Amino acid sequence: MQDSSATLPVILTGDRTTGPLHLGHYVGSLKNRVALQTTHRQYLLLADTQALTDNAHNPGRVRDNVIEIATDYLAVGIDPNQSTICLQSHLPALADLTLLYMNFVTVARLERNPTIKDEIQARGFGRDIPAGFLCYPVAQAADITGFKATIVPVGEDQAPLIEQTNEVVRRINRQAGVDVLPEAHALIPRVGRLPGINGKAKMSKSQGNTIQLSATADEIREAVRRMFTDPNHLKASDPGCVEGNVVFTYLDAFDEDHITVEDLKARYIRGGLGDSIVKKRLDDVLQALLAPIRDRRCALARDPGYVLQVVKRGTARAREITDATLRDVRAALGLFTLN
Amino acid sequence: MQDSSATLPVILTGDRTTGPLHLGHYVGSLKNRVALQTTHRQYLLLADTQALTDNAHNPGRVRDNVIEIATDYLAVGIDPNQSTICLQSHLPALADLTLLYMNFVTVARLERNPTIKDEIQARGFGRDIPAGFLCYPVAQAADITGFKATIVPVGEDQAPLIEQTNEVVRRINRQAGVDVLPEAHALIPRVGRLPGINGKAKMSKSQGNTIQLSATADEIREAVRRMFTDPNHLKASDPGCVEGNVVFTYLDAFDEDHITVEDLKARYIRGGLGDSIVKKRLDDVLQALLAPIRDRRCALARDPGYVLQVVKRGTARAREITDATLRDVRAALGLFTLN
Repeated sequence: MQDSSATLPVILTGDRTTGPLHLGHYVGSLKNRVALQTTHRQYLLLADTQALTDNAHNPGRVRDNVIEIATDYLAVGIDPNQSTICLQSHLPALADLTLLYMNFVTVARLERNPTIKDEIQARGFGRDIPAGFLCYPVAQAADITGFKATIVPVGEDQAPLIEQTNEVVRRINRQAGVDVLPEAHALIPRVGRLPGINGKAKMSKSQGNTIQLSATADEIREAVRRMFTDPNHLKASDPGCVEGNVVFTYLDAFDEDHITVEDLKARYIRGGLGDSIVKKRLDDVLQALLAPIRDRRCALARDPGYVLQVVKRGTARAREITDATLRDVRAALGLFTLN
Repeated sequence: MQDSSATLPVILTGDRTTGPLHLGHYVGSLKNRVALQTTHRQYLLLADTQALTDNAHNPGRVRDNVIEIATDYLAVGIDPNQSTICLQSHLPALADLTLLYMNFVTVARLERNPTIKDEIQARGFGRDIPAGFLCYPVAQAADITGFKATIVPVGEDQAPLIEQTNEVVRRINRQAGVDVLPEAHALIPRVGRLPGINGKAKMSKSQGNTIQLSATADEIREAVRRMFTDPNHLKASDPGCVEGNVVFTYLDAFDEDHITVEDLKARYIRGGLGDSIVKKRLDDVLQALLAPIRDRRCALARDPGYVLQVVKRGTARAREITDATLRDVRAALGLFTLN
């Protein structure tokens, strides 16, 4: 596979290992990754080092989710022969590149990064920002360039991080006098962020408003039952609102029969369609989507050695790639090499 | 040697690879290192990664001084069977530890570090501090703890860096619930900083006020001839001043016959002793000190493969030590290990 894929465009993507993946991840990224792996050389980074930048006091959480997320990947259809699943903390060249790039990025520039600004506020760091958190965009530049990735799927709010990466790329190339690193492009998914089942903008396990990829049939049914609809739609005969109605948002995202969904919306708006009917449809759609994923997850859980082997093999392959990039960058800058 | 020295106290020291070493380094550190290597397990770090934190735009300078400094070490009497000479950029565990520790140190704490404050001013960084420079105390904590060193020879102005290291040590140990890392102690040399030959407080190659360890006999003679004395001591018969008189400062540092030096000082203060007499004595002392160092340097320069081998072997040994520390720290924190 390595040889035939050598000329394919390179994608770097992945997840911080802070919790198992949910439906929001599926529709926002996992589904695309399964599609992209046949036409791209795709690296999936289990970002445990980055996860520590705001979980340093909870390393157990970061540890426990490494295999969880790798299992999620395999369960949704990531093929380890087409995609490379690898563990960030075990790719030392990424740490070396981070330290090297940190000399080419000022503290003032990092403080101006809009994503960092927002996240510092969201996490309530205030003045006590860990240095690792402030510098994580540089670590991300190391991740992306370490694989010489040119395509990076990100949410719209993360586009400034790709800009930061490309600034590093241009500075290194200028210093080296040669284009040793390629610039990367953000691939922003057409589907926006999936709201939590309670209608909150963000799915979060701590808020209990997610549906995990590992959810049982009962958990799915219960989540759909509790799902936020139109609070003013009290009787089936009342006209209802589909804007901000989570059941319809989910049907838009998961029901592939768009004509029927549009028809349901029209009936709901007009009045005469009860929540229980649309919820029943969504339940059917989600049960059909998640049952095979859950089954594969169960099979994988019975063979944890296999998942570990996948991560080991992927990390070994990724180590060759990232070590080679570090050597390339050091050589291009004219740094000392002991060989 | 490794086995018998396993119980000796561990010293970490070294130099940024930004220029060849001079007499100031000899009296301030190299001489002590030669003495300490028999009673300590001593690691000498060729700090090329740290050198880049303020030389990112001059990587050639950092590269060219790796072998220069290793040669200086061997020339002054560092025994590679007693001390381990190793190259920082080729010890990836140090970069990994740096990124890990950065999650336990706030940006505000780094900005308060008095050494960093002074150095930011000295280098004229202003607001444009590279992130790598701001974070270099964390990298230094990684260097020290990577070797589990308990003794770190530093200048008085660098004591805050050891305090920063120990803060990291205590935070990691507290998070781990076990003393996985030892605290370090600063070893501050009794001899203060040697002034430049022009009387300026700091020896610096760019100011042309140094005497390199590789200086020829003529260069030494010329440097002593130009050396700053007492500008009011115009005739031999005039009373002279020994305070701030570089020739006497150097005699104090290098002439082992302290009684004769005290006698010369008394005569100089009284009047009746010409600069040329004391300069002649200093020239004799420095020629005797530097001739064998220069000879060994010449011999080593004829065998560059030997110096490279010393650095390679030392780096391989240091890699085992630092990789083991990274494994220890990750295990103590309960992080994921792919093994």
